[in-house]
Amino acid sequence: MKKDADPMAPEIGDMSPEAFRAYGYRLIDWIADYLKNAESYPVLAQVRPGDIARQLPPQPPLQAESFDEILEDFEKLIIPGVTHWNHPAFMAYFAISAPGPGILGELLSGALNINAMLWKTCPAASELEEVVLDWLRQMLGLSGEFSGVLMDTASISSLCALAAARAAIPNYRIRTDGLAGRQDVPPLRLYVSEQAHSSIEKAAILLGIGQNHIRKIAVDDAYRLRPDMLSAAIAEDRAAGLKPFCAVATVGTTATTSVDPVAAMAPICREHQLWLHVDAAYAGSAAILPECRPILDGCEAADSLVLNPHKWMFTPFDFSVLYCRHMEILRSAFSLVPDYLQTTEGEHVRNYMDYGIQLGRRFRALKFWFVIRYFGVEGLQRRLREHIRLAQHFAKWVDQQADFERMAPVPFSTVCFRWVPKALGDSFDMDSEKGRTRLNEAIDLANEKLLDEVNKTGQAYLSSTKLQGRTVLRLTIGNIRTTEAHLRRVWALLNEHTQTLVQDVDRL
Amino acid sequence: MKKDADPMAPEIGDMSPEAFRAYGYRLIDWIADYLKNAESYPVLAQVRPGDIARQLPPQPPLQAESFDEILEDFEKLIIPGVTHWNHPAFMAYFAISAPGPGILGELLSGALNINAMLWKTCPAASELEEVVLDWLRQMLGLSGEFSGVLMDTASISSLCALAAARAAIPNYRIRTDGLAGRQDVPPLRLYVSEQAHSSIEKAAILLGIGQNHIRKIAVDDAYRLRPDMLSAAIAEDRAAGLKPFCAVATVGTTATTSVDPVAAMAPICREHQLWLHVDAAYAGSAAILPECRPILDGCEAADSLVLNPHKWMFTPFDFSVLYCRHMEILRSAFSLVPDYLQTTEGEHVRNYMDYGIQLGRRFRALKFWFVIRYFGVEGLQRRLREHIRLAQHFAKWVDQQADFERMAPVPFSTVCFRWVPKALGDSFDMDSEKGRTRLNEAIDLANEKLLDEVNKTGQAYLSSTKLQGRTVLRLTIGNIRTTEAHLRRVWALLNEHTQTLVQDVDRL
Repeated sequence: MKKDADPMAPEIGDMSPEAFRAYGYRLIDWIADYLKNAESYPVLAQVRPGDIARQLPPQPPLQAESFDEILEDFEKLIIPGVTHWNHPAFMAYFAISAPGPGILGELLSGALNINAMLWKTCPAASELEEVVLDWLRQMLGLSGEFSGVLMDTASISSLCALAAARAAIPNYRIRTDGLAGRQDVPPLRLYVSEQAHSSIEKAAILLGIGQNHIRKIAVDDAYRLRPDMLSAAIAEDRAAGLKPFCAVATVGTTATTSVDPVAAMAPICREHQLWLHVDAAYAGSAAILPECRPILDGCEAADSLVLNPHKWMFTPFDFSVLYCRHMEILRSAFSLVPDYLQTTEGEHVRNYMDYGIQLGRRFRALKFWFVIRYFGVEGLQRRLREHIRLAQHFAKWVDQQADFERMAPVPFSTVCFRWVPKALGDSFDMDSEKGRTRLNEAIDLANEKLLDEVNKTGQAYLSSTKLQGRTVLRLTIGNIRTTEAHLRRVWALLNEHTQTLVQDVDRL
Repeated sequence: MKKDADPMAPEIGDMSPEAFRAYGYRLIDWIADYLKNAESYPVLAQVRPGDIARQLPPQPPLQAESFDEILEDFEKLIIPGVTHWNHPAFMAYFAISAPGPGILGELLSGALNINAMLWKTCPAASELEEVVLDWLRQMLGLSGEFSGVLMDTASISSLCALAAARAAIPNYRIRTDGLAGRQDVPPLRLYVSEQAHSSIEKAAILLGIGQNHIRKIAVDDAYRLRPDMLSAAIAEDRAAGLKPFCAVATVGTTATTSVDPVAAMAPICREHQLWLHVDAAYAGSAAILPECRPILDGCEAADSLVLNPHKWMFTPFDFSVLYCRHMEILRSAFSLVPDYLQTTEGEHVRNYMDYGIQLGRRFRALKFWFVIRYFGVEGLQRRLREHIRLAQHFAKWVDQQADFERMAPVPFSTVCFRWVPKALGDSFDMDSEKGRTRLNEAIDLANEKLLDEVNKTGQAYLSSTKLQGRTVLRLTIGNIRTTEAHLRRVWALLNEHTQTLVQDVDRL
């Protein structure tokens, strides 16, 4: 970045408005160029552990430093250590986006620096939150029984949902009396599929449920929770004197983006008075497409649902929405109003601090409002459709190529696949169990090598997971700047590297 | 904001770099002007419940809208509903700051939009986090046994600390077996002062401890926890077969900023094997001043400590630091690594997702790095000293004026005081208990009226709390742009309004 501005902090007070303006322009220029050229950076940072830290002074500066120096160091020391989630070939985990209007919304929210804990500490933040979350509710086709509240991450949204589920159990007074040392409260049981996100397990640990009281229900061959197994598990637990209290359905699991049969789970939950929480953090966004809306079938009977527009709705991180049909229960799980936060507006306003863990709350609604308005619902739909089209394309390429294998259905924008080097088949005795096991291990290793080689190029970033014990590569499309050209390049990269690797099968 | 840029979203993809640049400049201009003129806005938003929401369309826009329109609405519809935490006469709750370098750091972090869950998903974010939190540790004079981890809020930091405290209890296997339905786990007991923050109670509810198992220890006449009462409570609980596991000391309570005697609490906690957590969210910042460092005396023996640079260290919200002396215990409370997040760097790197609830983590370290370097440690010290000097000034004015009364010591930048209209004394029989009670109620009401009148002017924003059942006004200084002139203006406002109100004592 070029130097041009009043460089130093004044003796007291803030940076001068002139300096802020000059440096602000420079950063806007830098970001505009950065986003334009994101693909010229290596996706995955090409540094070794400690490379960044060892270039930074071990002690803080006593004297003020010039902002020029700081920005120079940002470019020289920080940027080489950044893994570029903005790179259009970032296709690992779930790809995310920071589009222009979202970044600008984030900028304004950083500048306003309000705390939306109470309505009166920023009425616009509370009311805009209510309005935009209702917009999103309508876009998803959820009933007006659902109210939304903004959280930072799905980890927190699901924790709050499970806390509400616990609070909804009648007669146990867990809020006041806790869970420990009580004769009258049996172990609480939580039901999820084997494919549920780790955040659910973390929440169960925090809430004092315990990992051993999470029943991980088996999935079918498309990685969807089996309702018959859910019923059986609940019956078994009830017979054993345990207390089933909550089930979590996932709409778009992390590994394969499978969709649990919510419509079949809902009556089971109702019958046994279980809270039904839906984790639609990633795939829920797709429900704004009429052709995908069936993924939320049954969700009208859910008690809560989480969706993360920071994943696949082009909103900068962090921005997670918790919808709940029983706001009074969510409130009863959390509300604590100390003397210094008493208000006089009463029931006319929603003080959002009452509905979650954090007292401090950013002005998150602003960036989402910018994103929805700037792209429009139809613009968002076009972009999601394109991502799904690209993923289907990639799945077809995998299906059509003999030495690749697709490992799961592709309902959205994520493809699980693996390389199956044909040459390997010759090295093992396929008639013996042991031979087949060793072949599978060799294929796993080959895929790990392939992933490592592709990611090391800095031209693409894919991730991996395990399915039925086997290593599987994952490619996901979610970045607003990803085009078919990027996808073709990644496919070419994969093929280039399989050709190199296969030349030395022994090394595999 | 003036219009000048390419207004509409393209069919597909992101805002063009040209549009981003033009709108970015406009927002930088707007923010520079806004911060310069922050005091020309009413501090407390002058709107009624529903005023903002009813001006917004009930349904989301199907078609893209121009960014010009969005920014116009931001100014016209949103800004009037903003309570301006940037206003230099915002002196309610704890005042906070968004200084120029912090806003610019936030802008870059919004643009990079990384997720620092794993080291490799942004090595620079993880390593900069490690470095700047170690800088802060040194600034506070904490021993190298403490490691830091970035959280969003103290609500979450303290929740994580208490989760670690629970995980540290030997033999109970709470992570796996939970708390419910067990014969071998007695009720867990948590010790805090009557003045502790509500976030501690919320954490105890979440963790399944229960509100009734929080022992609220009495305070002395300076609102500090009484160690003798702590000892007695622990002994009583142990005798009753309960399980004391954690005590929380507050360095800077929310109501009066009193400092619990950590050095006296630490040996008690050691003796009874309690985890000692220190909530220094607000006042911890003052420990970077050598003359204030004694407030952390005893903290070297604490197990964890939370400090929020977003409160009183000029860092935009959100930015909370949890220091812990037993990172392996914190990790054991949280770490869950699913297949899709397995890594190969092993023990060489810190994957911060292992140390907290949230899997998703913003690049928070960047703004703090900007703030420390731009102001320098000495610059931060100058600003904190000035805030303390201003608060002492205000306390003196209160002390010197006959119809005002100071209600607590002023160790930092917060003053608790109340108006005592002398005229009221004549209206009640001071020789009777009932007369004195009615006088106190009348004084409470007078202070509520005074607060309301002052806040309604939009020229200042103060808050209130209760101390020993009495309504008390709170003035706090924490905004980087607050000067003595602003403080004088607030004092004048208070006096103007007492004079108006006192003319009609009957109305009180």
